Amino acid sequence: MIIVLKPEASKADADAILARIAAAGLKPLYMPGTERTVLGALGDERVLGQLHIESNPAVERVTPILTPFKLVSREMHPEDTVVAVGKVPVGGPRFTVIAGPCAVESREQMIATAEAVRRAGAHALRGGAFKPRTSPYSFQGLGQEGLDILHEAAVRVGLPAVTEVVEVADVKAVERCADAFQVGARNMQNFRLLKALGQSPKPVLLKRGMAATVEDLLLAAEYIVAEGNPNVILCERGIRTFETITRNTLDLNAVPYIKRHSHLPVLVDPSHGTGVREFVPPMAKAAIACGADGLLIEVHCDPRTALSDGQQSLSPDEFEAFMRDIRPFVAAAGRTL
Amino acid sequence: MIIVLKPEASKADADAILARIAAAGLKPLYMPGTERTVLGALGDERVLGQLHIESNPAVERVTPILTPFKLVSREMHPEDTVVAVGKVPVGGPRFTVIAGPCAVESREQMIATAEAVRRAGAHALRGGAFKPRTSPYSFQGLGQEGLDILHEAAVRVGLPAVTEVVEVADVKAVERCADAFQVGARNMQNFRLLKALGQSPKPVLLKRGMAATVEDLLLAAEYIVAEGNPNVILCERGIRTFETITRNTLDLNAVPYIKRHSHLPVLVDPSHGTGVREFVPPMAKAAIACGADGLLIEVHCDPRTALSDGQQSLSPDEFEAFMRDIRPFVAAAGRTL
Amino acid sequence: MIIVLKPEASKADADAILARIAAAGLKPLYMPGTERTVLGALGDERVLGQLHIESNPAVERVTPILTPFKLVSREMHPEDTVVAVGKVPVGGPRFTVIAGPCAVESREQMIATAEAVRRAGAHALRGGAFKPRTSPYSFQGLGQEGLDILHEAAVRVGLPAVTEVVEVADVKAVERCADAFQVGARNMQNFRLLKALGQSPKPVLLKRGMAATVEDLLLAAEYIVAEGNPNVILCERGIRTFETITRNTLDLNAVPYIKRHSHLPVLVDPSHGTGVREFVPPMAKAAIACGADGLLIEVHCDPRTALSDGQQSLSPDEFEAFMRDIRPFVAAAGRTL
Amino acid sequence: MIIVLKPEASKADADAILARIAAAGLKPLYMPGTERTVLGALGDERVLGQLHIESNPAVERVTPILTPFKLVSREMHPEDTVVAVGKVPVGGPRFTVIAGPCAVESREQMIATAEAVRRAGAHALRGGAFKPRTSPYSFQGLGQEGLDILHEAAVRVGLPAVTEVVEVADVKAVERCADAFQVGARNMQNFRLLKALGQSPKPVLLKRGMAATVEDLLLAAEYIVAEGNPNVILCERGIRTFETITRNTLDLNAVPYIKRHSHLPVLVDPSHGTGVREFVPPMAKAAIACGADGLLIEVHCDPRTALSDGQQSLSPDEFEAFMRDIRPFVAAAGRTL
Repeated sequence: MIIVLKPEASKADADAILARIAAAGLKPLYMPGTERTVLGALGDERVLGQLHIESNPAVERVTPILTPFKLVSREMHPEDTVVAVGKVPVGGPRFTVIAGPCAVESREQMIATAEAVRRAGAHALRGGAFKPRTSPYSFQGLGQEGLDILHEAAVRVGLPAVTEVVEVADVKAVERCADAFQVGARNMQNFRLLKALGQSPKPVLLKRGMAATVEDLLLAAEYIVAEGNPNVILCERGIRTFETITRNTLDLNAVPYIKRHSHLPVLVDPSHGTGVREFVPPMAKAAIACGADGLLIEVHCDPRTALSDGQQSLSPDEFEAFMRDIRPFVAAAGRTL
Repeated sequence: MIIVLKPEASKADADAILARIAAAGLKPLYMPGTERTVLGALGDERVLGQLHIESNPAVERVTPILTPFKLVSREMHPEDTVVAVGKVPVGGPRFTVIAGPCAVESREQMIATAEAVRRAGAHALRGGAFKPRTSPYSFQGLGQEGLDILHEAAVRVGLPAVTEVVEVADVKAVERCADAFQVGARNMQNFRLLKALGQSPKPVLLKRGMAATVEDLLLAAEYIVAEGNPNVILCERGIRTFETITRNTLDLNAVPYIKRHSHLPVLVDPSHGTGVREFVPPMAKAAIACGADGLLIEVHCDPRTALSDGQQSLSPDEFEAFMRDIRPFVAAAGRTL
Repeated sequence: MIIVLKPEASKADADAILARIAAAGLKPLYMPGTERTVLGALGDERVLGQLHIESNPAVERVTPILTPFKLVSREMHPEDTVVAVGKVPVGGPRFTVIAGPCAVESREQMIATAEAVRRAGAHALRGGAFKPRTSPYSFQGLGQEGLDILHEAAVRVGLPAVTEVVEVADVKAVERCADAFQVGARNMQNFRLLKALGQSPKPVLLKRGMAATVEDLLLAAEYIVAEGNPNVILCERGIRTFETITRNTLDLNAVPYIKRHSHLPVLVDPSHGTGVREFVPPMAKAAIACGADGLLIEVHCDPRTALSDGQQSLSPDEFEAFMRDIRPFVAAAGRTL
Repeated sequence: MIIVLKPEASKADADAILARIAAAGLKPLYMPGTERTVLGALGDERVLGQLHIESNPAVERVTPILTPFKLVSREMHPEDTVVAVGKVPVGGPRFTVIAGPCAVESREQMIATAEAVRRAGAHALRGGAFKPRTSPYSFQGLGQEGLDILHEAAVRVGLPAVTEVVEVADVKAVERCADAFQVGARNMQNFRLLKALGQSPKPVLLKRGMAATVEDLLLAAEYIVAEGNPNVILCERGIRTFETITRNTLDLNAVPYIKRHSHLPVLVDPSHGTGVREFVPPMAKAAIACGADGLLIEVHCDPRTALSDGQQSLSPDEFEAFMRDIRPFVAAAGRTL
């Protein structure tokens, strides 16, 4: 940790801070300059964080040296983690496609869509029963009934199921019906939910929040892993920027950054990342090319009647073509589909 | 609702959409142009939202005419709403200052700070028992013990208490110990929590999310009001932008916008909005000047030992000077302190 | 153009606006609703723009129906435009790689780098003589001497040269020494410069500004084409967002959007788009996969001594590996290198 | 400067960097840690910048200790700078209001508006002759004729004139007709223009770019001052963010930051900062309250016919009321109008 003092800070200010650093069992460093005094503290920055040196009025700025995430970092765990969703390994040599509707709307819709994505070659099924919607007047999901329908459809087509959980009280119910939890962008920093999921044996697909930095995402994953559940899959789904031609700005830079700094698998969701059906295939290919471990794709048996996200959902025919079209890119990336 | 069709859309596409609009009991409009066909649908846009016209592949863009929020809009309710926090009216002619530490750390710290903010003239006390923190290694709050301490301190100094709630399961416990709930930026779109608070009789101080538009904030308030609790106080606390010299970018433009489009009171939190102690007073004055109904200010009996947000907390002496310094601005705004 | 009136607007306000629309030779539409009156104006929106209807105090909001760019739009010109840089066609079946140092630093550096990029298979050479730098204390480029060196190096290795122009007064000098102008992100809305380049016969590589929407970029291109120069190549190079782990957020969504809405070729600059050497190859592959027509890559004969952008420059060896590694992705995209 | 090495960096890598630091006449520091080695370099960071240590592949991150701007910093020049625009001092105890139309449209419009703003008590006149517009189909300004009209109007009402300059070739012409140059947001990093203005004796009103950090703004000012012109006035006018209810997000946090870190005067432009007429008065008051030295306000003799920015322009009557309404806030801020 590097501590830059204000120009008006005295030697006594510096000494007081150095004493606190030493008392915490860390190595203090004193670097007086002509314009500013700089202090250093070497050691476990988790301990340093508890000293709250940035609160001292003599301090201008504190810069950490090490990343704040530990358990999810590649430095602590150099090999890639492979997370099993049902029997599907995510993060290994095989590229993973998870597909299905935004929301479970009815038994017919879910089964028709499940059969279509299975036929086209998807590896897992998605579908939301609890839908966090910006407006209270939008469709909010079928709840427990939706979970049951999803489960039935998944068993019928033989694919593992992934579905969103939005509340601690629902964790057990979701765990019974699904093979993996999804934490949506709006709940990425719902820390109580993350801790509850950290105590589940089932994997968690953690989506990046709209205003979350990649470091925030990795710290959210750290919450889950620190509670005892190492099975976390990260997902880039776009951030909020000034650009409004697409629903979000898909930040694919995050993919190579995460692959370098973390051992966790990372998926990309080009459906939310663009919000536009026609842009899903090119951005899915881009995700494959930059090193993602898989994709999350919205497919609906009849997009024009979808109760949510219809404009970014592929039809069964479009999804079949999609699975064919991404194949050469998966091969170019040295993986199999 | 205005519906712009794609250049390649046919007359049959237009007719199909117009028929759906009419079937929903709305007034359809057909406006063929040389380069694009435009359709209109006049009537209650909440019904229109359920048609999901944007999912139709012939549609290029759908633009609403009316605001999506209703109950919180000034059009539906022209007079200012005044919300009582304990006996303190928020939103009327009197300007409100809510002050206290970021987190309840101990009985001594809380009581010392409560006495200081009371002495300086604050109208309500704040203090967090449940702290949502970006890193799992940061101080997470004292939980129930913190609620009890806050309650004791508030009773002792005779001020109403405001504290954050982060989980549906905690709503009852917080309701017993505090006079108002605070919903933090990270939970602004935790819709299950908003619905639970909509069933409480106590007021809700709803903070804007870091990536939330003002419209998102008003829709989040709509969730609470739609469940039956009209006592919502909004709070601008800064958004996340590319500028990093301050912790957030305090978007004061939101204040006159909200005052014009909603009847709910709006506070400003310059502590989180800047993240820098020295900038709290000038930005508080700016908030008063642009029409805010009150302020949320972090005060700590000893900022340099604070377990969270010390660098943006005022000391008791600084807060006393602060309350004196804002007085002429409150008067210039035609209000009393 | 759709015009939403304020709730308090009168019938007379509406009539006055409708009269102005009709007087301008456009078709007016009157759509009274229960909560708002909506007006329409059908016809050439360039004429409509000159009516400044948004300035009328009775107007709440004006929404255009058509895109504001015309000459660069695919609707006006359905076929892809292929722009020749020297003898290199950009935008056709062959994928284009333009490589070289950020800045021309010396004759030795430029020639060594030119030979390296030529050897590895680049199609054109880049190198800046006029460097716009955030700080006045940073290296500002060699100016005319740099242009001469670039020209010599380009002739020597037989590649066309692309270099940045920052000022109207330099257009002729750059035209003499280079095969294409580059307009940097900071000058994307230097409209006087764009107009001057619109009168040159040489192509213009126009980079997206850091705060520019894709629509802003297309309108900047429209300035050049409207002056008579149809040879514009667009370049996505990242935008400024809250994420700071990379220098910019590379907005690859822009690529399929531009390919759909414009006939101009589009390149991607992953060097500026990431700012990190290790992320240049994965993001270059992503650019290929989502449909870009080419790449702009910073290569330096010795990155560790580079006077600018060294941390994002590839060494000759790295660039050679890079050209080999992107080959399967170029093939998967159905193009040749 | 603090240099964090990559985990894999060797002792030899560190020694090589330390030798370069020492060779440049700076003081090197070696701080080995258990997880990372950190190096320091103390001395003039302008020299350090030329070492390009960040280009070294062994380096993970370089963090400066000092601000990169020098001449404009308060550390170098503790007293406030007062800049004279004609005979109007900007930055002293008197608060300054510069008002006028966005664009000079005609002699009649300019004179009528000039008389109105003079009557209401403005201290200087603004009006653009060269208009940088996003679309080539928008009104581009009257050019030299506009300058002449502005000059005539300013002389007639006895106010100094401020007008935008967009091109080096126009500097002399603008200098003849106006008392201060304005550099618009789109040209804030047109460094050639900044250098040309650095050689003029007349003051420069420098507006912050839409994607510019405050540090970028101060470095742009540094360009002008470094060329020999110390008369720079800064202007906050809003940045581009995801929020679209207002034209820009007015970042008033920038005002106290600039007042603390720089000695230059700072104005606020709430017209561009909001883009909405009704929000100009509240945000102007906020600017006064947080410490701005003055305001830039768009006024038009008939906003509904304005050729640009009509929706954010005040009418003469509105401006008169505005000047009356801001008076108590100016007094509360301890200044005179």
